[in-house]
Amino acid sequence: MRYFIELSYNGEKYHGWQNQPNAISVQEVIEKALSTVLRKDVSILGAGRTDAGVHAKQMFAHVDVEEEINRTELVFKLNSFLPQDIAIQDIHAVKEDAHARFDAIGRTYEYWIVTEKNPFHNQSAHLVYKDLDVDLMNEAAKELFNYEDFKCFSKTHTDVKTYFCTIETVCWEQRNELLVFTIRADRFLRNMVRAIVGTLLEVGLGKLSIAGFKQIIESRNRNNAGTSVPGKALYLTAVTYPAETFKTHG
Amino acid sequence: MRYFIELSYNGEKYHGWQNQPNAISVQEVIEKALSTVLRKDVSILGAGRTDAGVHAKQMFAHVDVEEEINRTELVFKLNSFLPQDIAIQDIHAVKEDAHARFDAIGRTYEYWIVTEKNPFHNQSAHLVYKDLDVDLMNEAAKELFNYEDFKCFSKTHTDVKTYFCTIETVCWEQRNELLVFTIRADRFLRNMVRAIVGTLLEVGLGKLSIAGFKQIIESRNRNNAGTSVPGKALYLTAVTYPAETFKTHG
Repeated sequence: MRYFIELSYNGEKYHGWQNQPNAISVQEVIEKALSTVLRKDVSILGAGRTDAGVHAKQMFAHVDVEEEINRTELVFKLNSFLPQDIAIQDIHAVKEDAHARFDAIGRTYEYWIVTEKNPFHNQSAHLVYKDLDVDLMNEAAKELFNYEDFKCFSKTHTDVKTYFCTIETVCWEQRNELLVFTIRADRFLRNMVRAIVGTLLEVGLGKLSIAGFKQIIESRNRNNAGTSVPGKALYLTAVTYPAETFKTHG
Repeated sequence: MRYFIELSYNGEKYHGWQNQPNAISVQEVIEKALSTVLRKDVSILGAGRTDAGVHAKQMFAHVDVEEEINRTELVFKLNSFLPQDIAIQDIHAVKEDAHARFDAIGRTYEYWIVTEKNPFHNQSAHLVYKDLDVDLMNEAAKELFNYEDFKCFSKTHTDVKTYFCTIETVCWEQRNELLVFTIRADRFLRNMVRAIVGTLLEVGLGKLSIAGFKQIIESRNRNNAGTSVPGKALYLTAVTYPAETFKTHG
């Protein structure tokens, strides 16, 4: 039977979500805990991969288990085995062919910025010690709705077939001491959010006009966009599935 | 001339605010930075002392400087010298006899609790992995308004003359994933907030009745109150002064 594991992690000490040689990943640590608890080798497949240092407030991964499981008990046991920086929120019964990656219809990311030295967000937000024109950054951000091809914000060595994404939400807002950028889309290209934020910061600093921002998108050339901002301030906050994904056994 | 330094710090790596032998304090680190920037030995006096590991989102300390200073420049220089976990927000001109400790008329603390494993609040909140009756905890907390002598919540070896405090605000509220206890009073006794929270948690867990909570206060005996909760989840969030404190030179 297939299940969706709903989880969160502080990515600070991990080289991203996905398994890789010679570096510790979130996936690997969860697979090890699952294998210990279920007493057999178990692999999981995540809704996407986050880069080194990137966090997830909500992530899903699917797993296949032969026998019926007590989900509440499994959540409890996994949380006991897992380190403090990874937490399992829930385990959902899903239909047999549900796929954590291919069935996801939306992903939401937040990027956290502080514009003053902040002892409580040194690890969790990116410090931009300058005045930012947030209204202008919002105006530029809204231009993203007018485009579909975001090759200019994608890592160049990537195996995707198209650079098309549908942007559904985009917004800069002040939340107490944090300046938060929220973006939701059906899919994201590698490094896309961090490249968008880096480019919008140039707008906010007065170094790039809105017309210039549009030209960058139209150029489809990563070299024209801004510097990618650090991963430590990036949070995957939601992954969305169609309701029928969860309508099944259990 | 006397100035008030307004600052914040993440107390995780410090043995509290106040200078002490053989352990690093926040006061010591700020005095060192000030002495470097002003090129002479400088001492400061804080609004109060926080215990080891306790944080401050707003703290004040006074300092005497002979010559006129450029406050904006001094804030900038101090922040460059100070580590990431201490930040200076502002330097205020105050009247000549203003006293950071004796003139403070109110102090506000928050205590942060999570009731589920949380990868983002492992260091910043206290995990109580049980169901808490928050309504009952609020009901008990309101009883604090009916008392003035809080000896039962004070460290026994302390040099205070009285155990009288006036509680001005007290409240438990859910803020997203955090259960936050806020308390404001004219003054606090040593360890008082952590002892109150520990005792109110016993109420929330159903181990102590409201009548029992009142009996503890009336007993004036620290041994009757609950266990003190960890310092890592305690935040001094505001120190209040009368407006005239800031009405002066500069």
